[in-house]
Amino acid sequence: MIRTSRIRVATNGQDDMVDLTPKIEQVLRSEGVSEALMTAFVVGSTAALSTIEYEPGLQRDMPVALERVAPVDAVYEHEEKWHDDNGHSHIRASLVGPSLSVPVSGGRLTLGEWQQIVLLEFDTRPRERQVVIQLIDG
Amino acid sequence: MIRTSRIRVATNGQDDMVDLTPKIEQVLRSEGVSEALMTAFVVGSTAALSTIEYEPGLQRDMPVALERVAPVDAVYEHEEKWHDDNGHSHIRASLVGPSLSVPVSGGRLTLGEWQQIVLLEFDTRPRERQVVIQLIDG
Amino acid sequence: MIRTSRIRVATNGQDDMVDLTPKIEQVLRSEGVSEALMTAFVVGSTAALSTIEYEPGLQRDMPVALERVAPVDAVYEHEEKWHDDNGHSHIRASLVGPSLSVPVSGGRLTLGEWQQIVLLEFDTRPRERQVVIQLIDG
Repeated sequence: MIRTSRIRVATNGQDDMVDLTPKIEQVLRSEGVSEALMTAFVVGSTAALSTIEYEPGLQRDMPVALERVAPVDAVYEHEEKWHDDNGHSHIRASLVGPSLSVPVSGGRLTLGEWQQIVLLEFDTRPRERQVVIQLIDG
Repeated sequence: MIRTSRIRVATNGQDDMVDLTPKIEQVLRSEGVSEALMTAFVVGSTAALSTIEYEPGLQRDMPVALERVAPVDAVYEHEEKWHDDNGHSHIRASLVGPSLSVPVSGGRLTLGEWQQIVLLEFDTRPRERQVVIQLIDG
Repeated sequence: MIRTSRIRVATNGQDDMVDLTPKIEQVLRSEGVSEALMTAFVVGSTAALSTIEYEPGLQRDMPVALERVAPVDAVYEHEEKWHDDNGHSHIRASLVGPSLSVPVSGGRLTLGEWQQIVLLEFDTRPRERQVVIQLIDG
């Protein structure tokens, strides 16, 4: 059985990191699943999903690291072509990736104690994000 | 119900980026799924899958960014050992990752308007790639 | 039908790379699946999963590349706040990602000949890791 739902997340723009775990746990409870696969997918090409220990230190360390790969002020063909300012946002989003799969067992996400599911906002302005949550159970 | 199929993609070698979205949508139509999980997996260790806004600017920006992480001309133990030239290809492929999960709802991939599913070719020579497409529906 | 199991892996700490393929194949055999989706998820926020050609050269090349993104000796707010030494471990783990989806067809993982499923240990000390293996078949 497959159930697809969407959660909406308002972000503060670049470098914002939002803990999705409570909202996803709420979906699990309202759907009443026990053994299941939870797939999360962020719609759009300038945000990504991953897991992290959700605490203020790492929220500031993550953009510092990504600046080494896709610096905000580098030259991007994307920006030249579209007169845009978010070339780095697209590259960061594609590298981290839009989808995440977390097994559910005994009604709970199999996360570690210090491991949360997060949305990484890479776009330069605040956005209203949609995250598709799909549950498959037996 | 699970249906596994394969799509074949010819690439032009290093830095080629191929939009897989039309081929995957064709699989969805021919299998006639409505609510489903679509998993794509690229066979081989020098290519990867992600989503991106598929346009020429970002196709050129992506290798520039990856060059900062795994430069073509750096020293790789892999190359020393195997007299090979694609150490950077392997590293880039493992970092981006071989698999992607995209929920299907109402018969359509839940992608954003400017978000396509792409194969990133990191190997130095043109390759014939196989991408496994697996659909699970209720 | 969904079957969830766990495999345990002892790692040697930072830069250790463990080939999980034989253990996952053993789970496939003992569960007797044919067409299935295999999802692997590593519990904890300082390790990650990917595929790679598992050979000693790339095992040494991978940490060299990640050092360019999240250097061991950089300043991390995470370490300042928690008097910890593994800020780089968290960042590397979040970038590579905790989950991996590999289609199973004809009872076998659809990996390439030179493509193995690996756990990347990023923490600074040896760890006992749990990897959740979830199989969905029709």
